[in-house]
Amino acid sequence: MNRITQLFNIQYPIVQAGMIWCSGWKLASAVSNAGGLGLIGSGSMNPEILTIHIKKCKQATNNPFGVNIPLIYPYTEDFVRIVIEENVKIVFTSAGNPAKWTSLIKEKGITVVHVVANTKSAKKCEEVGVDAIVAEGFEAGGHNGKEETTTMVLIPMIRKIVSLPLIAAGGIGTGSGMLAAIALGADGVQIGSRFVASLESSAHQNFKNKIIEAKDGDTQLTLKKIMPVRLIKNKFFYDVEQKQNNGASIQELSDLLGSGRARKGMFEGDEKEGEMEIGQISGIINEIKPAVQIVKEIVEEFNQTSKSIAGLQI
Amino acid sequence: MNRITQLFNIQYPIVQAGMIWCSGWKLASAVSNAGGLGLIGSGSMNPEILTIHIKKCKQATNNPFGVNIPLIYPYTEDFVRIVIEENVKIVFTSAGNPAKWTSLIKEKGITVVHVVANTKSAKKCEEVGVDAIVAEGFEAGGHNGKEETTTMVLIPMIRKIVSLPLIAAGGIGTGSGMLAAIALGADGVQIGSRFVASLESSAHQNFKNKIIEAKDGDTQLTLKKIMPVRLIKNKFFYDVEQKQNNGASIQELSDLLGSGRARKGMFEGDEKEGEMEIGQISGIINEIKPAVQIVKEIVEEFNQTSKSIAGLQI
Repeated sequence: MNRITQLFNIQYPIVQAGMIWCSGWKLASAVSNAGGLGLIGSGSMNPEILTIHIKKCKQATNNPFGVNIPLIYPYTEDFVRIVIEENVKIVFTSAGNPAKWTSLIKEKGITVVHVVANTKSAKKCEEVGVDAIVAEGFEAGGHNGKEETTTMVLIPMIRKIVSLPLIAAGGIGTGSGMLAAIALGADGVQIGSRFVASLESSAHQNFKNKIIEAKDGDTQLTLKKIMPVRLIKNKFFYDVEQKQNNGASIQELSDLLGSGRARKGMFEGDEKEGEMEIGQISGIINEIKPAVQIVKEIVEEFNQTSKSIAGLQI
Repeated sequence: MNRITQLFNIQYPIVQAGMIWCSGWKLASAVSNAGGLGLIGSGSMNPEILTIHIKKCKQATNNPFGVNIPLIYPYTEDFVRIVIEENVKIVFTSAGNPAKWTSLIKEKGITVVHVVANTKSAKKCEEVGVDAIVAEGFEAGGHNGKEETTTMVLIPMIRKIVSLPLIAAGGIGTGSGMLAAIALGADGVQIGSRFVASLESSAHQNFKNKIIEAKDGDTQLTLKKIMPVRLIKNKFFYDVEQKQNNGASIQELSDLLGSGRARKGMFEGDEKEGEMEIGQISGIINEIKPAVQIVKEIVEEFNQTSKSIAGLQI
């Protein structure tokens, strides 16, 4: 159908975001089997675990799937070696500079997509030869750009300066949101939060419940002095905010954050002390469903909305 | 064409935001003459000045125009009296509770629209009988909601719970942005920043130049402890940020803000010490044009984008 489905050899230009603690082989293979592109989120894995997830994903689907590799983690080099060894065909890189890794990964015949949140990084992507860009807006869950540019603004901004296939992310969880992204100039979408609230996601049930309960204003970008991240406003979030309001240093905030906060929140379900990363679109997610059903609903709503405004002229 | 054009009796469902220091009778009448709905922004006026602007606007256009009245200013009562006396047919209220004023204004046969940034206020609007809602996202310039919900998320969220005609605002400055808003469930759009960068806007030339120079990341929401406002990052902005990072109290921030900061920035053109309120979409605005040209370009791009994706199915 378009540049994104051709690039990945998939049915629908719908990518499931590679998210820490939520998207292992079960979710990735379910989305790929449903006609989208599933991604294994390696950011919360070690090399051994990632290898297991890739092997299981291959067994669970014959369709293309990919691995998301954050470029700022200690395991980056191992992960790149593993995806090459395991013959993974698609890699999404994020949170770092694609200059170092893109050519190395592409040499092995792997399709490389990099996630950006600003125009400068988008231009960099084109220079270093990535195959497509994910442009992620401020409303997205998890780590986020310092510019705070929203999807509504970021997509046309990047479309204007880069000719690469463009995947919109942040604030998209429905078919009408997907159509809006296409109208803004995207070729496809990456969806995170809605897939966290799937049966196959490895998010803890408590975290899934938090997502379907969330309303507008229940998430916020915080920890901007360290690395901006969008979280559900739970006790941990308010502890962070209080420290920040009192002028805490980076060191004090890092101490509060400690290690294992994300695991505690998203994987172990500690609603008070854990970090729960989710996007604003959680405010319109009300039900936990199988991933295949989520993909189906997005496609149907896209097609219906597209029909209902077909060729509208003012 | 739709509920918005019918409600206001205008040609295109494009509303020019009623903005302090920028949208007097010249801009409002130019937009109304171009087939959109022009709004006089009363928030920076006194009763005498507002009366003059309304009278001049009536002389400059035979088309419908409106007045934006912030509901938290000392002149609210005077302004309501003036729009009634001057037989203004359309009033947009913002920044306050519509419960007190809506029925009073509607009794006089005036169409009332209220600006909201969250679902709670949207429901309130429906309860108190406003005729339409503007839902304004985080990316918008000027004062903004505490929830920080972006347009991409806010529009479907409000569309879901309210059946009133819905005008999307925040991050919209082009025809493709307008089409995206319609896909998300809006009936029309309100555009601010792009009209500030018009020949007819009363913004100081220095402010207009700042807008066309702005890139992504050049605006930010600040002063969240007092009332969130999106500003261009100039010296004044960084002074505020520094104070906030050091844990300044509301009183200290209010003292720094002082009075006349917005006038100094937007109307007098003080690029260093003035407050310059503008939206993120300034990053893709590159030229100062007549308002009629802006409306024409938005309409043409809307129609072209709509044609190019007409009936797209995946």
